[in-house]
Amino acid sequence: MNLADGLVFVSDSRTNAGVDHIATFRKLHLFGVPGERLIVLQSAGNLATSQSVVSLLRQRWGSEQANLHNAATLFDAAGLVGATLREVLQRDQGATLCQGLDLGCSFLVGGQIGHETPRLFNLYPQGNFIESSLDTPYFQIGESKYGKPILDRALHHATPLEQALRCALISFDSTIRSNLSVGMPLDVLVYRRNSLAVPQGFRIHDGDPYFERIRAQWGGGLRQLLGELPDVPGQYWD
Amino acid sequence: MNLADGLVFVSDSRTNAGVDHIATFRKLHLFGVPGERLIVLQSAGNLATSQSVVSLLRQRWGSEQANLHNAATLFDAAGLVGATLREVLQRDQGATLCQGLDLGCSFLVGGQIGHETPRLFNLYPQGNFIESSLDTPYFQIGESKYGKPILDRALHHATPLEQALRCALISFDSTIRSNLSVGMPLDVLVYRRNSLAVPQGFRIHDGDPYFERIRAQWGGGLRQLLGELPDVPGQYWD
Repeated sequence: MNLADGLVFVSDSRTNAGVDHIATFRKLHLFGVPGERLIVLQSAGNLATSQSVVSLLRQRWGSEQANLHNAATLFDAAGLVGATLREVLQRDQGATLCQGLDLGCSFLVGGQIGHETPRLFNLYPQGNFIESSLDTPYFQIGESKYGKPILDRALHHATPLEQALRCALISFDSTIRSNLSVGMPLDVLVYRRNSLAVPQGFRIHDGDPYFERIRAQWGGGLRQLLGELPDVPGQYWD
Repeated sequence: MNLADGLVFVSDSRTNAGVDHIATFRKLHLFGVPGERLIVLQSAGNLATSQSVVSLLRQRWGSEQANLHNAATLFDAAGLVGATLREVLQRDQGATLCQGLDLGCSFLVGGQIGHETPRLFNLYPQGNFIESSLDTPYFQIGESKYGKPILDRALHHATPLEQALRCALISFDSTIRSNLSVGMPLDVLVYRRNSLAVPQGFRIHDGDPYFERIRAQWGGGLRQLLGELPDVPGQYWD
Protein backbone atom coordinates (compact mmCIF):
# COMPACT_ATOMS: atom_id res chain seq x y z
CA MET A 1 0.00 0.00 0.00
CA ASN A 2 1.32 3.46 -0.93
CA LEU A 3 -0.59 5.92 1.25
CA ALA A 4 -0.42 9.58 2.22
CA ASP A 5 1.54 8.76 5.41
CA GLY A 6 3.81 6.05 4.01
CA LEU A 7 4.01 2.44 2.87
CA VAL A 8 2.53 -0.77 4.31
CA PHE A 9 3.77 -4.23 3.24
CA VAL A 10 2.33 -7.60 4.30
CA SER A 11 3.45 -10.98 2.90
CA ASP A 12 2.44 -14.47 3.84
CA SER A 13 5.14 -17.15 3.85
CA ARG A 14 3.58 -20.28 2.41
CA THR A 15 4.94 -21.87 -0.73
CA ASN A 16 3.74 -25.01 -2.41
CA ALA A 17 4.56 -27.30 -5.28
CA GLY A 18 1.31 -29.21 -4.94
CA VAL A 19 -0.28 -30.19 -1.63
CA ASP A 20 2.51 -32.68 -0.92
CA HIS A 21 5.12 -29.95 -0.91
CA ILE A 22 4.09 -27.18 1.46
CA ALA A 23 6.85 -25.09 3.00
CA THR A 24 7.55 -21.78 4.71
CA PHE A 25 9.72 -19.21 2.95
CA ARG A 26 10.04 -15.51 3.51
CA LYS A 27 8.62 -13.51 0.59
CA LEU A 28 9.39 -10.01 1.89
CA HIS A 29 12.94 -8.76 1.33
CA LEU A 30 14.55 -5.59 2.58
CA PHE A 31 17.35 -3.48 1.07
CA GLY A 32 18.28 -0.24 2.80
CA VAL A 33 20.73 2.38 3.94
CA PRO A 34 19.41 4.35 6.94
CA GLY A 35 18.95 8.04 6.10
CA GLU A 36 19.30 7.34 2.38
CA ARG A 37 17.10 4.57 0.94
CA LEU A 38 14.64 1.81 1.70
CA ILE A 39 13.67 -0.72 -0.97
CA VAL A 40 11.23 -3.54 -0.16
CA LEU A 41 10.65 -6.50 -2.49
CA GLN A 42 7.70 -8.87 -2.18
CA SER A 43 7.42 -11.93 -4.41
CA ALA A 44 4.81 -14.38 -5.63
CA GLY A 45 5.02 -17.27 -8.04
CA ASN A 46 7.88 -19.64 -8.77
CA LEU A 47 10.19 -19.72 -5.73
CA ALA A 48 13.33 -20.83 -7.59
CA THR A 49 12.99 -17.82 -9.87
CA SER A 50 12.16 -15.26 -7.17
CA GLN A 51 14.92 -16.50 -4.84
CA SER A 52 17.48 -16.28 -7.65
CA VAL A 53 16.40 -12.72 -8.44
CA VAL A 54 16.72 -11.65 -4.79
CA SER A 55 20.08 -13.46 -4.41
CA LEU A 56 21.51 -11.77 -7.49
CA LEU A 57 20.29 -8.36 -6.28
CA ARG A 58 21.95 -8.96 -2.87
CA GLN A 59 25.16 -10.26 -4.43
CA ARG A 60 25.43 -7.16 -6.62
CA TRP A 61 24.52 -4.69 -3.83
CA GLY A 62 27.38 -2.16 -3.71
CA SER A 63 29.19 -3.65 -6.73
CA GLU A 64 30.44 -1.67 -9.73
CA GLN A 65 27.46 -2.49 -11.95
CA ALA A 66 23.97 -0.96 -11.64
CA ASN A 67 22.41 -2.27 -8.41
CA LEU A 68 19.87 -1.41 -5.72
CA HIS A 69 22.50 0.44 -3.69
CA ASN A 70 23.27 2.96 -6.43
CA ALA A 71 19.87 3.16 -8.18
CA ALA A 72 19.07 6.88 -8.35
CA THR A 73 15.27 6.49 -8.21
CA LEU A 74 12.77 3.81 -7.24
CA PHE A 75 11.75 3.69 -10.90
CA ASP A 76 15.35 2.68 -11.71
CA ALA A 77 15.24 0.11 -8.88
CA ALA A 78 12.04 -1.44 -10.30
CA GLY A 79 13.66 -1.54 -13.75
CA LEU A 80 16.65 -3.33 -12.24
CA VAL A 81 14.45 -5.94 -10.56
CA GLY A 82 12.67 -6.47 -13.89
CA ALA A 83 15.96 -6.84 -15.77
CA THR A 84 17.23 -9.33 -13.17
CA LEU A 85 13.99 -11.32 -13.45
CA ARG A 86 14.45 -11.50 -17.25
CA GLU A 87 18.06 -12.60 -16.76
CA VAL A 88 17.04 -15.47 -14.46
CA LEU A 89 14.23 -16.58 -16.77
CA GLN A 90 16.60 -16.55 -19.73
CA ARG A 91 19.06 -18.68 -17.74
CA ASP A 92 16.43 -21.23 -16.63
CA GLN A 93 13.75 -21.33 -19.30
CA GLY A 94 16.08 -22.75 -21.92
CA ALA A 95 16.79 -25.87 -19.85
CA THR A 96 14.94 -28.84 -21.31
CA LEU A 97 13.84 -30.18 -17.92
CA CYS A 98 11.77 -27.04 -17.26
CA GLN A 99 9.66 -27.21 -20.40
CA GLY A 100 6.00 -27.04 -19.52
CA LEU A 101 6.66 -25.74 -16.01
CA ASP A 102 5.70 -22.16 -15.17
CA LEU A 103 8.85 -20.43 -13.93
CA GLY A 104 7.19 -17.01 -13.80
CA CYS A 105 6.93 -14.81 -10.76
CA SER A 106 5.70 -11.34 -9.83
CA PHE A 107 7.21 -8.70 -7.60
CA LEU A 108 6.09 -5.67 -5.69
CA VAL A 109 8.86 -3.09 -5.32
CA GLY A 110 8.22 -0.22 -2.92
CA GLY A 111 10.24 2.24 -0.91
CA GLN A 112 11.81 5.66 -0.90
CA ILE A 113 15.15 6.88 -2.23
CA GLY A 114 16.42 10.24 -0.93
CA HIS A 115 14.12 13.18 -1.60
CA GLU A 116 11.86 11.28 -3.98
CA THR A 117 8.32 10.66 -2.75
CA PRO A 118 7.65 7.03 -1.63
CA ARG A 119 6.73 4.88 -4.64
CA LEU A 120 5.29 1.43 -5.25
CA PHE A 121 5.60 -0.72 -8.38
CA ASN A 122 3.93 -3.94 -9.48
CA LEU A 123 6.19 -6.07 -11.73
CA TYR A 124 4.64 -8.58 -14.09
CA PRO A 125 6.29 -11.94 -14.89
CA GLN A 126 7.50 -10.32 -18.14
CA GLY A 127 9.58 -7.84 -16.13
CA ASN A 128 7.58 -4.75 -17.11
CA PHE A 129 5.70 -2.85 -14.40
CA ILE A 130 3.05 -0.36 -13.34
CA GLU A 131 3.09 2.21 -10.53
CA SER A 132 0.45 2.83 -7.85
CA SER A 133 -1.51 6.10 -7.86
CA LEU A 134 -3.90 8.17 -5.76
CA ASP A 135 -6.80 6.28 -7.38
CA THR A 136 -5.23 2.85 -6.91
CA PRO A 137 -3.05 3.05 -3.80
CA TYR A 138 -2.47 -0.68 -3.35
CA PHE A 139 -1.33 -3.77 -5.26
CA GLN A 140 -1.72 -7.47 -4.52
CA ILE A 141 0.24 -10.33 -6.08
CA GLY A 142 -0.34 -14.05 -5.74
CA GLU A 143 -3.65 -15.31 -4.35
CA SER A 144 -5.34 -11.92 -4.43
CA LYS A 145 -9.06 -12.39 -4.93
CA TYR A 146 -10.34 -13.53 -1.52
CA GLY A 147 -8.82 -10.55 0.28
CA LYS A 148 -9.66 -7.87 -2.29
CA PRO A 149 -13.24 -6.92 -1.28
CA ILE A 150 -12.26 -5.49 2.13
CA LEU A 151 -9.44 -3.45 0.55
CA ASP A 152 -11.81 -2.10 -2.11
CA ARG A 153 -14.30 -1.05 0.55
CA ALA A 154 -12.09 0.33 3.29
CA LEU A 155 -8.74 1.46 1.87
CA HIS A 156 -8.05 4.91 0.45
CA HIS A 157 -4.90 6.94 -0.14
CA ALA A 158 -5.72 8.99 2.98
CA THR A 159 -6.19 5.96 5.29
CA PRO A 160 -3.83 6.26 8.31
CA LEU A 161 -1.00 3.70 8.37
CA GLU A 162 -2.18 1.91 11.50
CA GLN A 163 -5.70 1.43 10.12
CA ALA A 164 -4.32 0.37 6.75
CA LEU A 165 -2.22 -2.29 8.45
CA ARG A 166 -5.30 -3.60 10.31
CA CYS A 167 -7.15 -3.70 6.99
CA ALA A 168 -4.29 -5.66 5.38
CA LEU A 169 -4.26 -8.17 8.26
CA ILE A 170 -8.02 -8.72 7.94
CA SER A 171 -7.60 -9.15 4.18
CA PHE A 172 -4.97 -11.85 4.79
CA ASP A 173 -7.14 -13.55 7.41
CA SER A 174 -9.98 -13.92 4.87
CA THR A 175 -7.58 -15.41 2.32
CA ILE A 176 -5.95 -17.78 4.81
CA ARG A 177 -9.37 -19.12 5.87
CA SER A 178 -10.52 -19.80 2.31
CA ASN A 179 -7.32 -20.94 0.55
CA LEU A 180 -4.68 -23.43 1.68
CA SER A 181 -1.97 -21.91 -0.53
CA VAL A 182 -1.72 -18.86 1.76
CA GLY A 183 -0.54 -19.35 5.34
CA MET A 184 1.10 -17.99 8.46
CA PRO A 185 3.46 -16.53 9.52
CA LEU A 186 2.92 -13.07 8.05
CA ASP A 187 5.76 -10.63 7.50
CA VAL A 188 4.74 -7.03 8.13
CA LEU A 189 6.65 -3.83 7.42
CA VAL A 190 5.45 -0.24 7.83
CA TYR A 191 7.46 2.70 6.48
CA ARG A 192 6.68 6.28 7.53
CA ARG A 193 6.93 8.77 4.64
CA ASN A 194 10.21 10.74 4.57
CA SER A 195 11.63 8.97 7.64
CA LEU A 196 14.30 7.30 5.46
CA ALA A 197 14.44 4.75 8.27
CA VAL A 198 15.10 1.07 7.59
CA PRO A 199 12.56 -0.69 9.82
CA GLN A 200 13.19 -4.42 10.21
CA GLY A 201 9.52 -5.33 10.18
CA PHE A 202 7.67 -7.83 12.35
CA ARG A 203 6.77 -11.49 11.92
CA ILE A 204 3.27 -12.49 13.05
CA HIS A 205 3.26 -16.19 13.93
CA ASP A 206 0.28 -18.51 14.18
CA GLY A 207 -1.30 -17.99 17.60
CA ASP A 208 -0.06 -14.40 17.91
CA PRO A 209 -2.34 -12.89 20.61
CA TYR A 210 -3.15 -9.66 18.74
CA PHE A 211 -3.83 -11.43 15.44
CA GLU A 212 -6.02 -14.05 17.16
CA ARG A 213 -7.94 -11.29 18.88
CA ILE A 214 -8.75 -9.32 15.72
CA ARG A 215 -9.54 -12.57 13.83
CA ALA A 216 -12.10 -13.53 16.48
CA GLN A 217 -13.52 -10.01 16.78
CA TRP A 218 -13.79 -9.67 12.99
CA GLY A 219 -15.40 -13.09 12.49
CA GLY A 220 -17.90 -12.54 15.29
CA GLY A 221 -18.63 -9.02 14.05
CA LEU A 222 -19.32 -10.25 10.51
CA ARG A 223 -21.77 -12.87 11.72
CA GLN A 224 -23.51 -10.27 13.88
CA LEU A 225 -23.69 -7.79 10.98
CA LEU A 226 -25.24 -10.48 8.81
CA GLY A 227 -27.80 -11.28 11.50
CA GLU A 228 -28.70 -7.59 11.82
CA LEU A 229 -29.45 -7.08 8.13
CA PRO A 230 -33.18 -6.64 7.47
CA ASP A 231 -35.11 -9.78 6.51
CA VAL A 232 -35.32 -10.58 2.80
CA PRO A 233 -38.81 -9.49 1.59
CA GLY A 234 -41.20 -12.39 1.04
CA GLN A 235 -41.61 -11.81 -2.73
CA TYR A 236 -37.88 -12.47 -3.26
CA TRP A 237 -38.19 -16.06 -2.26
CA ASP A 238 -41.74 -17.23 -2.72
CA MET B 1 -26.72 -24.16 -1.07
CA ASN B 2 -28.20 -27.45 0.15
CA LEU B 3 -29.34 -26.81 3.73
CA ALA B 4 -31.44 -28.50 6.39
CA ASP B 5 -34.54 -26.50 5.37
CA GLY B 6 -34.08 -26.58 1.61
CA LEU B 7 -32.13 -25.18 -1.31
CA VAL B 8 -30.98 -21.63 -2.14
CA PHE B 9 -29.78 -20.65 -5.63
CA VAL B 10 -28.34 -17.28 -6.69
CA SER B 11 -26.89 -16.54 -10.14
CA ASP B 12 -25.62 -13.30 -11.62
CA SER B 13 -26.37 -12.61 -15.27
CA ARG B 14 -23.25 -11.06 -16.77
CA THR B 15 -21.44 -12.72 -19.62
CA ASN B 16 -18.39 -11.45 -21.43
CA ALA B 17 -16.16 -12.30 -24.34
CA GLY B 18 -13.59 -9.68 -23.39
CA VAL B 19 -14.43 -6.21 -22.06
CA ASP B 20 -15.80 -5.17 -25.47
CA HIS B 21 -18.50 -7.83 -25.36
CA ILE B 22 -20.43 -7.58 -22.11
CA ALA B 23 -24.01 -8.82 -22.12
CA THR B 24 -26.82 -9.97 -19.84
CA PHE B 25 -27.97 -13.58 -20.03
CA ARG B 26 -29.91 -15.66 -17.56
CA LYS B 27 -27.74 -18.40 -15.99
CA LEU B 28 -30.38 -19.97 -13.76
CA HIS B 29 -32.76 -22.43 -15.44
CA LEU B 30 -35.79 -24.14 -14.03
CA PHE B 31 -37.35 -27.52 -14.87
CA GLY B 32 -40.29 -28.70 -12.80
CA VAL B 33 -43.58 -30.46 -12.33
CA PRO B 34 -45.48 -29.15 -9.27
CA GLY B 35 -45.97 -31.89 -6.67
CA GLU B 36 -43.42 -34.13 -8.40
CA ARG B 37 -40.04 -32.59 -9.19
CA LEU B 38 -37.95 -29.45 -9.23
CA ILE B 39 -34.60 -29.33 -11.05
CA VAL B 40 -32.55 -26.12 -11.11
CA LEU B 41 -29.54 -25.65 -13.39
CA GLN B 42 -26.98 -22.88 -12.95
CA SER B 43 -24.20 -22.39 -15.48
CA ALA B 44 -20.78 -20.74 -15.72
CA GLY B 45 -18.23 -20.66 -18.52
CA ASN B 46 -18.74 -20.72 -22.27
CA LEU B 47 -22.24 -19.40 -23.05
CA ALA B 48 -22.61 -21.12 -26.43
CA THR B 49 -21.95 -24.45 -24.75
CA SER B 50 -24.17 -23.90 -21.70
CA GLN B 51 -27.07 -22.53 -23.78
CA SER B 52 -26.90 -25.53 -26.11
CA VAL B 53 -26.97 -27.91 -23.16
CA VAL B 54 -30.03 -26.19 -21.65
CA SER B 55 -31.79 -26.00 -25.05
CA LEU B 56 -31.26 -29.71 -25.69
CA LEU B 57 -32.52 -30.57 -22.21
CA ARG B 58 -35.66 -28.45 -22.79
CA GLN B 59 -36.20 -29.86 -26.28
CA ARG B 60 -36.04 -33.42 -24.93
CA TRP B 61 -38.23 -32.72 -21.88
CA GLY B 62 -41.07 -35.24 -22.03
CA SER B 63 -39.67 -37.07 -25.07
CA GLU B 64 -39.17 -40.84 -25.39
CA GLN B 65 -35.46 -40.78 -24.54
CA ALA B 66 -33.98 -40.25 -21.06
CA ASN B 67 -34.69 -36.64 -20.03
CA LEU B 68 -35.15 -34.40 -16.99
CA HIS B 69 -38.90 -35.13 -16.95
CA ASN B 70 -38.48 -38.87 -16.48
CA ALA B 71 -35.18 -38.97 -14.53
CA ALA B 72 -35.88 -41.15 -11.46
CA THR B 73 -33.39 -39.42 -9.15
CA LEU B 74 -31.46 -36.17 -9.03
CA PHE B 75 -28.31 -38.25 -9.44
CA ASP B 76 -29.70 -39.45 -12.77
CA ALA B 77 -30.61 -35.87 -13.68
CA ALA B 78 -27.03 -34.72 -12.99
CA GLY B 79 -25.70 -37.60 -15.09
CA LEU B 80 -28.00 -36.52 -17.93
CA VAL B 81 -26.75 -32.93 -17.78
CA GLY B 82 -23.17 -34.23 -17.84
CA ALA B 83 -23.90 -36.49 -20.83
CA THR B 84 -25.55 -33.60 -22.69
CA LEU B 85 -22.55 -31.38 -21.95
CA ARG B 86 -20.23 -34.02 -23.43
CA GLU B 87 -22.50 -34.32 -26.47
CA VAL B 88 -22.33 -30.56 -27.12
CA LEU B 89 -18.56 -30.44 -26.62
CA GLN B 90 -18.12 -33.34 -29.01
CA ARG B 91 -20.25 -31.51 -31.59
CA ASP B 92 -18.37 -28.20 -31.28
CA GLN B 93 -14.82 -29.01 -30.26
CA GLY B 94 -14.04 -30.76 -33.53
CA ALA B 95 -14.75 -27.62 -35.58
CA THR B 96 -11.49 -26.09 -36.76
CA LEU B 97 -12.56 -22.52 -36.00
CA CYS B 98 -12.80 -23.28 -32.28
CA GLN B 99 -9.28 -24.56 -31.83
CA GLY B 100 -7.57 -22.76 -29.00
CA LEU B 101 -10.84 -21.40 -27.59
CA ASP B 102 -12.11 -22.73 -24.27
CA LEU B 103 -15.59 -24.11 -24.88
CA GLY B 104 -15.85 -25.58 -21.38
CA CYS B 105 -18.55 -24.77 -18.86
CA SER B 106 -19.63 -25.86 -15.39
CA PHE B 107 -23.08 -26.54 -13.99
CA LEU B 108 -24.74 -26.72 -10.62
CA VAL B 109 -27.71 -29.09 -10.61
CA GLY B 110 -29.97 -28.99 -7.56
CA GLY B 111 -33.51 -29.91 -6.68
CA GLN B 112 -35.79 -32.63 -5.39
CA ILE B 113 -37.49 -35.52 -7.16
CA GLY B 114 -40.40 -37.18 -5.37
CA HIS B 115 -39.53 -38.67 -1.99
CA GLU B 116 -35.78 -38.29 -2.40
CA THR B 117 -34.11 -35.77 -0.13
CA PRO B 118 -33.12 -32.49 -1.86
CA ARG B 119 -29.71 -32.86 -3.53
CA LEU B 120 -27.11 -30.59 -5.09
CA PHE B 121 -24.41 -31.52 -7.63
CA ASN B 122 -21.43 -29.62 -9.02
CA LEU B 123 -20.59 -30.67 -12.61
CA TYR B 124 -17.09 -30.15 -13.94
CA PRO B 125 -16.38 -29.18 -17.57
CA GLN B 126 -15.58 -32.87 -18.18
CA GLY B 127 -19.17 -33.81 -17.33
CA ASN B 128 -18.35 -35.71 -14.12
CA PHE B 129 -19.65 -34.35 -10.82
CA ILE B 130 -19.56 -34.22 -7.01
CA GLU B 131 -22.42 -33.92 -4.51
CA SER B 132 -22.76 -31.52 -1.58
CA SER B 133 -22.67 -32.87 1.98
CA LEU B 134 -23.30 -31.86 5.59
CA ASP B 135 -19.66 -30.72 5.81
CA THR B 136 -19.73 -28.81 2.54
CA PRO B 137 -23.29 -27.58 2.05
CA TYR B 138 -22.62 -25.13 -0.80
CA PHE B 139 -20.95 -24.93 -4.20
CA GLN B 140 -19.85 -21.97 -6.27
CA ILE B 141 -19.02 -21.95 -9.98
CA GLY B 142 -17.51 -19.17 -12.06
CA GLU B 143 -15.86 -16.21 -10.33
CA SER B 144 -15.96 -17.78 -6.88
CA LYS B 145 -13.04 -16.47 -4.83
CA TYR B 146 -14.11 -12.94 -3.82
CA GLY B 147 -17.37 -14.14 -2.31
CA LYS B 148 -16.09 -17.29 -0.60
CA PRO B 149 -14.80 -15.89 2.75
CA ILE B 150 -18.24 -14.79 4.00
CA LEU B 151 -19.74 -18.18 3.06
CA ASP B 152 -16.91 -20.00 4.86
CA ARG B 153 -17.50 -17.93 7.98
CA ALA B 154 -21.27 -17.72 8.18
CA LEU B 155 -22.87 -20.62 6.32
CA HIS B 156 -23.62 -24.02 7.84
CA HIS B 157 -25.99 -26.85 6.96
CA ALA B 158 -28.32 -25.69 9.76
CA THR B 159 -28.46 -22.02 8.64
CA PRO B 160 -32.12 -21.00 8.08
CA LEU B 161 -33.06 -20.37 4.42
CA GLU B 162 -33.74 -16.67 4.84
CA GLN B 163 -30.39 -16.03 6.51
CA ALA B 164 -28.60 -18.18 3.94
CA LEU B 165 -30.13 -16.10 1.15
CA ARG B 166 -28.92 -12.88 2.83
CA CYS B 167 -25.46 -14.45 3.11
CA ALA B 168 -25.51 -15.35 -0.61
CA LEU B 169 -26.56 -11.81 -1.57
CA ILE B 170 -23.72 -10.30 0.50
CA SER B 171 -21.31 -12.78 -1.10
CA PHE B 172 -22.43 -11.62 -4.56
CA ASP B 173 -22.18 -7.97 -3.55
CA SER B 174 -18.51 -8.45 -2.59
CA THR B 175 -17.80 -10.12 -5.92
CA ILE B 176 -19.66 -7.51 -7.96
CA ARG B 177 -17.68 -4.70 -6.31
CA SER B 178 -14.30 -6.31 -6.97
CA ASN B 179 -14.75 -7.96 -10.38
CA LEU B 180 -16.31 -6.59 -13.57
CA SER B 181 -17.11 -10.04 -14.94
CA VAL B 182 -19.93 -10.48 -12.40
CA GLY B 183 -22.92 -8.13 -12.56
CA MET B 184 -26.58 -7.44 -11.88
CA PRO B 185 -29.34 -8.49 -12.18
CA LEU B 186 -29.26 -11.47 -9.82
CA ASP B 187 -31.61 -14.44 -10.21
CA VAL B 188 -32.69 -15.88 -6.89
CA LEU B 189 -34.61 -19.06 -6.16
CA VAL B 190 -35.42 -20.60 -2.78
CA TYR B 191 -36.88 -24.11 -2.48
CA ARG B 192 -38.38 -25.36 0.78
CA ARG B 193 -37.51 -28.99 1.55
CA ASN B 194 -40.28 -31.47 0.68
CA SER B 195 -42.62 -28.77 -0.66
CA LEU B 196 -42.25 -30.19 -4.21
CA ALA B 197 -43.33 -26.70 -5.29
CA VAL B 198 -41.92 -25.09 -8.45
CA PRO B 199 -41.17 -21.53 -7.33
CA GLN B 200 -40.47 -19.15 -10.23
CA GLY B 201 -37.74 -17.27 -8.38
CA PHE B 202 -37.12 -13.52 -8.25
CA ARG B 203 -34.92 -11.21 -10.28
CA ILE B 204 -33.07 -8.52 -8.31
CA HIS B 205 -32.31 -5.59 -10.61
CA ASP B 206 -29.70 -2.88 -10.12
CA GLY B 207 -31.17 -0.27 -7.77
CA ASP B 208 -33.49 -2.78 -6.05
CA PRO B 209 -34.39 -1.03 -2.75
CA TYR B 210 -33.78 -4.04 -0.48
CA PHE B 211 -30.49 -4.96 -2.14
CA GLU B 212 -29.28 -1.34 -2.02
CA ARG B 213 -30.20 -1.20 1.66
CA ILE B 214 -28.26 -4.31 2.69
CA ARG B 215 -25.30 -3.27 0.48
CA ALA B 216 -25.10 0.08 2.26
CA GLN B 217 -25.67 -1.41 5.72
CA TRP B 218 -23.07 -4.13 5.11
CA GLY B 219 -20.45 -1.75 3.69
CA GLY B 220 -20.92 0.74 6.53
CA GLY B 221 -20.90 -2.05 9.10
CA LEU B 222 -17.62 -3.48 7.75
CA ARG B 223 -15.89 -0.09 7.91
CA GLN B 224 -17.18 0.40 11.45
CA LEU B 225 -16.01 -3.09 12.50
CA LEU B 226 -12.57 -2.34 11.10
CA GLY B 227 -12.44 0.94 13.01
CA GLU B 228 -13.42 -0.82 16.24
CA LEU B 229 -10.64 -3.41 16.09
CA PRO B 230 -7.95 -2.81 18.71
CA ASP B 231 -4.92 -0.78 17.59
CA VAL B 232 -1.99 -2.75 16.20
CA PRO B 233 0.67 -3.00 18.94
CA GLY B 234 3.62 -0.68 18.40
CA GLN B 235 6.21 -3.48 18.06
CA TYR B 236 4.40 -4.77 14.96
CA TRP B 237 5.24 -1.73 12.95
CA ASP B 238 8.26 0.00 14.43
